[in-house]
Amino acid sequence: MATGKTSELERRMDALARLAGGVAHDINNMLGAIEGYATLAQRGLQPSSQLHSDMEEIRKAVGRATSLTRRLILFSSRQPALKVKVELPGLLEELSARLTAGLRPEIRIGASFKPGLPEVQGDPQRLELLFSNLLLNAADAMPGGGTIGLAAEEAGGFVKVSVSDQGPGMPPEVAEHLFEPFFTTKPKGKGTGLGLAEAYGIARQHGGRIEVSTAEGRGSEFRVLLPAPGHAGSS
Amino acid sequence: MATGKTSELERRMDALARLAGGVAHDINNMLGAIEGYATLAQRGLQPSSQLHSDMEEIRKAVGRATSLTRRLILFSSRQPALKVKVELPGLLEELSARLTAGLRPEIRIGASFKPGLPEVQGDPQRLELLFSNLLLNAADAMPGGGTIGLAAEEAGGFVKVSVSDQGPGMPPEVAEHLFEPFFTTKPKGKGTGLGLAEAYGIARQHGGRIEVSTAEGRGSEFRVLLPAPGHAGSS
Repeated sequence: MATGKTSELERRMDALARLAGGVAHDINNMLGAIEGYATLAQRGLQPSSQLHSDMEEIRKAVGRATSLTRRLILFSSRQPALKVKVELPGLLEELSARLTAGLRPEIRIGASFKPGLPEVQGDPQRLELLFSNLLLNAADAMPGGGTIGLAAEEAGGFVKVSVSDQGPGMPPEVAEHLFEPFFTTKPKGKGTGLGLAEAYGIARQHGGRIEVSTAEGRGSEFRVLLPAPGHAGSS
Repeated sequence: MATGKTSELERRMDALARLAGGVAHDINNMLGAIEGYATLAQRGLQPSSQLHSDMEEIRKAVGRATSLTRRLILFSSRQPALKVKVELPGLLEELSARLTAGLRPEIRIGASFKPGLPEVQGDPQRLELLFSNLLLNAADAMPGGGTIGLAAEEAGGFVKVSVSDQGPGMPPEVAEHLFEPFFTTKPKGKGTGLGLAEAYGIARQHGGRIEVSTAEGRGSEFRVLLPAPGHAGSS
């Protein structure tokens, strides 16, 4: 990919992150006020009363809105919440086992990790979310079932984790917008359009990046590159 | 400006519009639910009661959030709400008179309109908002006072309205991001970062565009081009 192109993509993602973060911040302030008044109002009310349950509904709606703003902040933030040592193969194995239980039986995850992988530094919960989003995205790409390839190896100071599917692949005009929030090719109601944006944001927070290779009829492969500090060539 | 560059800018603005529209739509659904329950709860309450006033506060916070989502939708929407004939000089004169009354006394608006300008098709309220945002932006660019130039002329099937200031101008790295929502160079609390984004969205809804010329030390000029249908060369 040419440098000019990459920096345009980065510029676009930066602008999106600014918008996502700005909206989320402003909306959160207002949600905080609403939540506060609803909680205050509930205090003097009988839990069995209609008013109490109205306040509960308000708090539920605030909760739904907050889970959206939380995802926007996750996409937009530049720093991981935590920086601890993370051993990726362990995290990925545990995640795969947990996800497999919930996936359709026609979907398999075939994992293969190079031994002796260096640890990465970061937020294990966010990294789990990153890979969970990629794995679920791969499962969604194969409505007829198939195997999700999950591999990890060291690559020039980075740990590279690849998630590949045997789905129909994507044309370039789709691939180009894949990581933009609210971009989705899934039917309305299916898919929020936030999963890959979130994955992109988390990789970036960790000083890494996501690349994608795809072509129509050939499936897709997402590669997550995370710096492995203390190893030669790491940045 | 090279074509590749323009289309990258458009791609960026499209991605921003998708995000803005998506968030606004989702948040609006939740705000609608909150507003509904707060209104319902208020019905059985004494207007003088604490609970009634708590519900009022909730409704106010919903109102603030809705005015944000409304602006995001205005930025993202592809169609004007109305399509009527609009005579721009009349609209601009009235708007200038109204704004001048509210501006600091050191700010003047110097208007000059070519006679016989064609009408444009569109939504007068949104067009007024577009120009109001540009005029206020020009006023903000001149903290020491000065004259805002406001001119309109026909230019190849378009009506071109230019708004210029005698402020300090902008470096290219600022000019490039000017129309992105939540991009602002103003101090926190001043300026929402939505005014120019809104202006950009409204111009685009009308089949037009906004251009900007600026350089440090030389002020800025915003040119709004709106198609004048029925005139030779219009698109």
